[in-house]
Formats: sequence, C-alpha cells, structure tokens
Amino acid sequence: MPDFAFKLKTTDGAARRGVVSTAWGEVETPVFMPVGTAATVKGMMPESVRATGASIILANTYHLMLRPGAERVGRLGGVRRLMGWDGPLLTDSGGFQVMSLGPLRKLDEDGVTFKSHLDGSQHRLTPERSTEIQHLLDATITMAFDECTPFPATEAMAAESMRLSMRWAKRSRAAFVPRKGYGQFGIVQGSVYRDLRAESVAALEDIDFEGYAIGGLAVGEGQQAMFETLDFTTPMMRPDKPRYLMGVGKPSDLVGGVARGVDMFDCVLPTRSGRTGQGFTRRGPVNIKNARHAEDMRPLDEACACPACSRFSRAYLHHLFKADEVQGLMLLTWHNLHYYQDLMAAMRAAIEQGRFAAFEAEFHATQSLGDIEPV
Amino acid sequence: MPDFAFKLKTTDGAARRGVVSTAWGEVETPVFMPVGTAATVKGMMPESVRATGASIILANTYHLMLRPGAERVGRLGGVRRLMGWDGPLLTDSGGFQVMSLGPLRKLDEDGVTFKSHLDGSQHRLTPERSTEIQHLLDATITMAFDECTPFPATEAMAAESMRLSMRWAKRSRAAFVPRKGYGQFGIVQGSVYRDLRAESVAALEDIDFEGYAIGGLAVGEGQQAMFETLDFTTPMMRPDKPRYLMGVGKPSDLVGGVARGVDMFDCVLPTRSGRTGQGFTRRGPVNIKNARHAEDMRPLDEACACPACSRFSRAYLHHLFKADEVQGLMLLTWHNLHYYQDLMAAMRAAIEQGRFAAFEAEFHATQSLGDIEPV
Repeated sequence: MPDFAFKLKTTDGAARRGVVSTAWGEVETPVFMPVGTAATVKGMMPESVRATGASIILANTYHLMLRPGAERVGRLGGVRRLMGWDGPLLTDSGGFQVMSLGPLRKLDEDGVTFKSHLDGSQHRLTPERSTEIQHLLDATITMAFDECTPFPATEAMAAESMRLSMRWAKRSRAAFVPRKGYGQFGIVQGSVYRDLRAESVAALEDIDFEGYAIGGLAVGEGQQAMFETLDFTTPMMRPDKPRYLMGVGKPSDLVGGVARGVDMFDCVLPTRSGRTGQGFTRRGPVNIKNARHAEDMRPLDEACACPACSRFSRAYLHHLFKADEVQGLMLLTWHNLHYYQDLMAAMRAAIEQGRFAAFEAEFHATQSLGDIEPV
Repeated sequence: MPDFAFKLKTTDGAARRGVVSTAWGEVETPVFMPVGTAATVKGMMPESVRATGASIILANTYHLMLRPGAERVGRLGGVRRLMGWDGPLLTDSGGFQVMSLGPLRKLDEDGVTFKSHLDGSQHRLTPERSTEIQHLLDATITMAFDECTPFPATEAMAAESMRLSMRWAKRSRAAFVPRKGYGQFGIVQGSVYRDLRAESVAALEDIDFEGYAIGGLAVGEGQQAMFETLDFTTPMMRPDKPRYLMGVGKPSDLVGGVARGVDMFDCVLPTRSGRTGQGFTRRGPVNIKNARHAEDMRPLDEACACPACSRFSRAYLHHLFKADEVQGLMLLTWHNLHYYQDLMAAMRAAIEQGRFAAFEAEFHATQSLGDIEPV
C-alpha cells in the first residue's frame, strides 16, 4: 500500500498539475470531487460516478453521524465499503454544516452542541469526536474540525474564529490515527484578511498536515473577493502539499481556482443543479425545463459523450423534467458530473502542455456564447 | 423486416412456450413487460431495463396523450425513439386509465370524454382516436379501445359493457393501419361470467386480431376468481395467437397465469413496490425499511445477480430508503424487474423441459419459507 503523498508534476503560471497517492488509488490534480452526502452521490450508481471520470468523492460527517450513525457505518466497514466506492474518499469535519444550523447550535471552546435537523435530538462535535467519526467512516482524507467563519466578518471576529479553528486543528491532529495511505488536511481560515490567512497558514504548517484546505470561501463573498483572497493565500502555502478549495464551485470558479494554484475542489452544484433541471454545457448553463427544448432532438451538449448527451435529446430530457420523472434527474446529474470531469481533464491537459492561459481565454469565450439557437 | 407472428414452440400441460416476432425484435414467451408509463420505466435507464432480461416494454396512452401529447411524440419519432428503447413496445388503449377517473369521465356509445388529472383540461377518446394515438406513439403492439368492466358487475351489466367493447373493438380494428411487423390485440371482456367470456372470444376472433388480451381481471376479484376465470377462458382462445393477461401481477399470479396458458403479462407492481421499499425475493417479499436489515451485510436475495444484490447489502439499501435517497429506488426497482425476468426465464425453461408442474410446486414451497432469519 502506498504512502499518502503529493507529487507536483508540472506548473503553468500558478496552475499546478500533480497527483495525490492514497491507500485506495491515485488522484490526478487538479481534481473535482463529487459530493456523496449520505454515502450516495444522489441519483448515481458508484460505477456511473466513476464513469464520469471521478477518482475521489466526498461524504458528509454531519449527515452520516445522524443517519445511519458513525458507529453503525464503522461496523459496516466504512463509507467506501457500504456504498461500493472503490476509490479514495474525503470526509468533511461536520463543522461547516453544524455552523449552518444557526440557532440550533451552541459553540464553546471545546466544541459545538447542536440539534439534529432530522429529529431534534442533541449531539456534540469536538475536534476529537469529529476525527474519531471520520475514522469510523474510514475516510481516506480526514478534515480538521474547524469553525467556518461567517461572511461578512470584521477582522476581529475573523481573527477570533480563525484562532479557535487553529486550536481545534491542533487537537484534530492529535486525535488523528495515522494509517498508511491515509491523510489529514488542515483548513486555512481568516476570511478575506491577508494577515489572518498568513497567520492561519503558518499555524497549520507548524502542526504539519498531509494537505491544506482553504475554508471560509464561497460563503457569499462573491467570485471577485474569492479570487482576490486566493491571489494572496495560495502563494503563502507550501508548494509540496495539495491545496483544496472547499465547497467550490461554478465552472468559472474552478477555472479561476486552478489558475490561482488550487489542486482540489468539491461542490454540490453539478448534482443539485442536475436535480432541478439545470445542465452545464460548454456554452454555459441551460434550463432544460424551458419550453423551447420541448421538440429539440439535439443533445444538451453536442461535444459531450455522457449518456444524457449521446443517447437522449433535449426534448426527452425536457419531457422527463416536466413529468417529474426520476430518469430526468439521473441523466442531468450524470451529464453535469461528466461535464465537470471533462473540464478538469481539459485543465490538466492544458497545464501539461503549458497552454493554460489560452485554455482559460477560450473557456470564457465559449461560455459567453450562450446556448445554441432554438430549432 | 419480419411479419408480426406468433410461434408456439411447445406446451407443458396448459403452459405454453412461444415466440412473438415483431418489427423491432423477438419476444420469448411467457414474457413479463415492464411498465414505462410516461416513456420511461421509472428510475431505470433503457439499457438497464434490457439488462434485467426485458425484451418488450409497455407505455400508457392516457399519460402520453396528456404529456407530452400524442402529436408531439409523433413528431419526435415515437416512444421508442424518444426514450431510446430498441425493442418492441406495447401501448394500452387509454381505456383502463380513463375508466379509473370515475366522476371525471363520461361514457357514451361513441367514446369517452374525460378531464385530465394534470390540469383539468377536457379530452376525448374513441376507438378511432385511441388507435390513431397509438400509431403516433409508434406502438409495435396496439391495443383495441375497450371499457374495462368494473368489479363486481352483475351479469347484465357485464354483458352490456362487454358488448360495447366488442363494438369498439371492431371500430379499433378498422382504424388500425397495418404495418409490417406491427400488430393489434383485441381484449376479451365479460367479467367472471363464462358465457360472456365465450361470446367475447368469439366476437374478437370474428374480427381477427394478431393477438388477444384478457381484460377486466386484477381489478379486485382476487386471485382465486381470476384463476377460475382463466381456467374457462384460455381454453376457448385460439392456440395459435398470443394471449396477454393485462395488468397482472404478483409473482404467484404470473406462475398461475402461465400454468393456465397465458403468454404475456404487464404490471406496475415490481417498479412501484421498488419505489416504496418492497423487494421481491425467492423467499417472498421483503420490506427493506424494516429495522432488522439495518446492519445486515447480506444481499437482499442471495440467488440474484442484479446490481442491488451482487454489489450492495441489505444494510445499504435500508440506509438509502431511510434517508429517502434516489439510489434506493433505483436499486430496488432494478432488483424487482430482474427478479421478475428471472422468474419468467425459469418458467420458460421449465416448460421447455416438461417440468412446469414441478417448477410450480417448488416456487410455492420456496416462497412460503419467508425471509431469511435476521443476523
């Protein structure tokens, strides 16, 4: 079994082309990780997720600790075995979702007490318990337990929140049980403040993780502020470790993130949008429920080789969504994940070939074309 | 392109082993046809439906005429092309579902006027329009437009209803456009009354269809009354044409139907049950939501080769249903259709080998075992 490792193969400007080696397979970076919240990527069989080009997926500690329960998942052999996913798995720490509960949660120095959104039962997460749960889930990559600083936050608030997260990061690291081919990532906080991000990067590198995530972005600050924060944050980070931008994002976020030296991404957008009828294409997003698709026999995206595009028409996808048929969300989820993986593969190729800037320009030019004209 | 034809290969008692030849492929009988109501077998890709062993599927005229509309489906190339199903397709006439609308429909000698359950808009079906719609849907097998006689019905009511259906059958036949490899079936009515069934069989054979269905059963009369009706009805029917028992049924209904000389079946039970957590197994039905499956790593049915049974555990299926995850209904629908097709294949083999009676006895013995003991 290989050690957990990151190899930086080549760079093109700030963009990086690498590979993460894990106990359960290699991950070519930059990479997009589909979200399998409750140990299933909604509407997809695991082999279909793999067929889109995905090499690693994400699952959510918060949802799984509530249902079916962390100890139960542990007895069932972990998330990977339970759901039949044969690649590496990253789990979040539960922190982000618990923070989203608002008045249902109470934070103190030691951790967070919260009520389940399912049945109102009381639960507690600490750095130690979050790390233990992720062990029970058999996460290949465990995330440190942190507070996702809300946006907007004053510098003082952001500093206080970040420093708590750094103390929790140290406790998370102490609770982590090293296993060959497994790793743990620390999470850089500090909102949009350069000095705080610098302090956070230094604190985490002092602890020493297998990788580093950038947290507290994609929480309402907008793409420009996110990019500006990345512009000063990634250059502070060690080049020899993977960098993971959490919860991001739209296709243009991914391209901009890679341009700024990010290696890993995750987001519910392709799967969630797929369930509501939004398809991502090379010419921008398309709402398949729009009446103009009703008799359009062309594929959603002519350049896409996914089942939705290669075997079905816009007219059929439109019908499935209008009739609220499960196959509609199955197909559009598949397409969106396939599109995201195609985009990542194209970026990896562009970096290898030293033409990332040209790729980025072409991406924006094509996306701004808008959808094909109605028949 | 072959003619539409039925070849009776062999018999074993009343059970029949045959093959229906159509423009879009052959159908080995006895056969079970999965229901794809709105031009999709709910939760299944067409190639997955095929992978269960299905050779022909059914779609519903009533649903498709309302959404996306018969003329629209016609412009899109028919149901088979629209949904990507490369085998033969049977459509019902719309009659059964319109009758189910109760006060929303009004019947006269010429046809039925009814209100859409979707938007209350008014529509009309006659034998001519039903036949035209099925042509627009590009049904490989078109069904005659009939009134499904309610149960219970007095002999006088059943006679009146049946005779109306026979007049409509004649008009349906006149409206049918013969195409090579396509066929039209008449529907025997007459409730549970032997003389009426005999009269109906004779009336339909006088018209001369490519096949004959038995309608008005599985409408609340119970398995015993259904079997008794089949016991006197199928022997009256021509042996050289396929016999289709509409809307049936449970696994034991299929076995009893085949034992009584039925060649074709359709039912929403395997797909609908799959969506609500009921799995059919060799030892009888299982409710996967039951708490006793929560940590059971065994497959739903050890003898089943479907994806749900070969790659996932009862514990995982249980979790998916408790968490209301789409993959749960996808897997259990797939399993149930696979189980139904395995059952039909086993019956075809048993008839070929002249051991259908032994098969039937073993089927009932195994089904009555009940589910495997909890771990």
